[in-house]
Amino acid sequence: MYARMTRMRVAPDSRTFLDRVRRARAAMERSDVDLLLVSVGSDLPYLTGYEAMPLERLTMLVVPRDGAATLVIPRLEAPRVHEHPDVFTLLPWNETDDPVALVASLVDRPRVAAVGDTMWARFLVELLVHWPSDTTRYVRGTVVMNELRMRKDVAEISALQAAGAAADRVATQLQAGEIKLVGRTEAAVSADISARLLAEGHDVVNFAIVAAGENAASPHHHAGERVIVEGDLVLCDFGGTMAGYCSDITRCVSLGEPQPEVAEAYAVLHAAQAAGVAAGVVGANCQDVDRAARRVINDGGFGDYFIHRTGHGIGMEAHEDPYMVEGNSLPIAAGHAFSVEPGIYVPGKWGMRLEDIVVATDDGPLAMNRVNHDLVVLG
Amino acid sequence: MYARMTRMRVAPDSRTFLDRVRRARAAMERSDVDLLLVSVGSDLPYLTGYEAMPLERLTMLVVPRDGAATLVIPRLEAPRVHEHPDVFTLLPWNETDDPVALVASLVDRPRVAAVGDTMWARFLVELLVHWPSDTTRYVRGTVVMNELRMRKDVAEISALQAAGAAADRVATQLQAGEIKLVGRTEAAVSADISARLLAEGHDVVNFAIVAAGENAASPHHHAGERVIVEGDLVLCDFGGTMAGYCSDITRCVSLGEPQPEVAEAYAVLHAAQAAGVAAGVVGANCQDVDRAARRVINDGGFGDYFIHRTGHGIGMEAHEDPYMVEGNSLPIAAGHAFSVEPGIYVPGKWGMRLEDIVVATDDGPLAMNRVNHDLVVLG
Repeated sequence: MYARMTRMRVAPDSRTFLDRVRRARAAMERSDVDLLLVSVGSDLPYLTGYEAMPLERLTMLVVPRDGAATLVIPRLEAPRVHEHPDVFTLLPWNETDDPVALVASLVDRPRVAAVGDTMWARFLVELLVHWPSDTTRYVRGTVVMNELRMRKDVAEISALQAAGAAADRVATQLQAGEIKLVGRTEAAVSADISARLLAEGHDVVNFAIVAAGENAASPHHHAGERVIVEGDLVLCDFGGTMAGYCSDITRCVSLGEPQPEVAEAYAVLHAAQAAGVAAGVVGANCQDVDRAARRVINDGGFGDYFIHRTGHGIGMEAHEDPYMVEGNSLPIAAGHAFSVEPGIYVPGKWGMRLEDIVVATDDGPLAMNRVNHDLVVLG
Repeated sequence: MYARMTRMRVAPDSRTFLDRVRRARAAMERSDVDLLLVSVGSDLPYLTGYEAMPLERLTMLVVPRDGAATLVIPRLEAPRVHEHPDVFTLLPWNETDDPVALVASLVDRPRVAAVGDTMWARFLVELLVHWPSDTTRYVRGTVVMNELRMRKDVAEISALQAAGAAADRVATQLQAGEIKLVGRTEAAVSADISARLLAEGHDVVNFAIVAAGENAASPHHHAGERVIVEGDLVLCDFGGTMAGYCSDITRCVSLGEPQPEVAEAYAVLHAAQAAGVAAGVVGANCQDVDRAARRVINDGGFGDYFIHRTGHGIGMEAHEDPYMVEGNSLPIAAGHAFSVEPGIYVPGKWGMRLEDIVVATDDGPLAMNRVNHDLVVLG
């Protein structure tokens, strides 16, 4: 047996889901999509309140633009569904059934089908047998879902704030020196931070990167057996999921006074991050956030060492649209939630990153993280 | 930033991967597959030692049947790869590149492409633009990978044994009464079991189902706020990943002497599980395991209450081929690893399941779990 915890603690009522499915259908209309298919991932709980386990047994919400929605589900999982009969009909399948054939039998062959991003490819491979790509055009589910998912409503922003505040409490403990660093491995500190994220209310830890000294120069270094020593610059980037919504924060601490080069770079990074946040206003483009942060780092002389995009959207997923990256001219709208996280990475020496989550509002950027942005010196 | 821990602690050497890729190519030859594409999931670390993070940035191993293999990877992740130049070439892509177009440019349009099961569907949707399904036939990656992945080698069996032994230690603690049950919620016991799985050496907890009394009648009930009381039959089904390989075990304990009906059913269940294990021999069919266990439960009069298949394969994934289910006539081969886990579920009253992992060998079934199979009475 295999089961993961459903993350949403308080399920919104039927009205919320009815409204979301109605808006999804309106988006299908606008995008000329006949059929929406969503499976594992966040679109399903967003539309129905039900999170499918990432299993080989297919769970799929079938939403024709015109016609009733059906949740095709393994019979074994059916008791876990909180039903909303006005939103979808439950269709359990048995252990020896072919669930993809069942899905294909529910509706006429669509001209255009939108497929949830994180559905397992095996189910699309099987679907292609029923509906080949020369008669059915497949598009990404984001074509339909992005408009809805990107614009967080009040309840969603409140959930992001709660998750952000919980992560902030752990970051505050880090800056206060309450998390022992010197003499421990990165991995041990990572485990400590993970435990604190849970203690502060997260349901799941998604990551707890701890990178000391030269290890921080690889932005996706996780946490290893390197022992942290006096003099290290330590990068901590961590987050989890709390009541269905994600946190994500990065802070660096210096164990002892930083080298002048590090202090200088950090001042540039600090200014770059603030510039990125300030650029994240309604009506600006996503790439403007990247450009604003990057310009400060370029001007500071560290441009060659900022080797990734400036940010990613966040919500039910730790990474989701919109992305703050060159080339993304999507206008930022009220309710867009995203990270602003420039970094400077000098190979073989040190790395630093500074990250907050912000939500764009008509009154300007609303910060989900409010922890001291300075390079705090410990010890 | 977003990162999950790489699970494999000790990476096999290049020779292992070279051999596996060679065998994958032989399977492609036999199945008339031109191109193998694998992304997130276990096929990638199986073939390369590298586990991709489940991210929106594409990582994809491109294996033409004839020609060199290429690992297309976000530049940011490239430093995490332990390179095996004789196995694959690393091809990092930049933040503003189109990685799917890059994949499509690497090889001629394939006649038959095998796509890893758990690849995100969004990448296949994008690939269909380059290679529509009327000119490229898509098949499941399992067509190529199953033969390899299902037959565990000596090192893999050893890893399964180690993970099984760690889970056994927690099951032993449960049966010894060392895990407090009465007066705690299912969720609290689940958290306790999770902590013990980690303490016993697992890197990740995959699930820790705790279902008391009537809740156990839903096989996929996870663990909730129900408080466990004297008299309950408590079902615990838990497992995790340790050094890249999974454990999975189920034991039930009775808090006080069980009702005669429960004791009678458990005797049937016990016999059914043993019959399932005994049927899991080299040369039998997968469905024979299901039939053997089901026959005992049917004969015992509980047939209507055994509502799921008897087992699933296990290895790098908690669930993988082969499945012990009616209709699966695949012959069991030496090295096949799978669960045998019949259950009896009486709605509104109680549920029970008994599960071990076994590996088929030429000398008969080898048990990965060796904990007492009786219904242990506590309190």
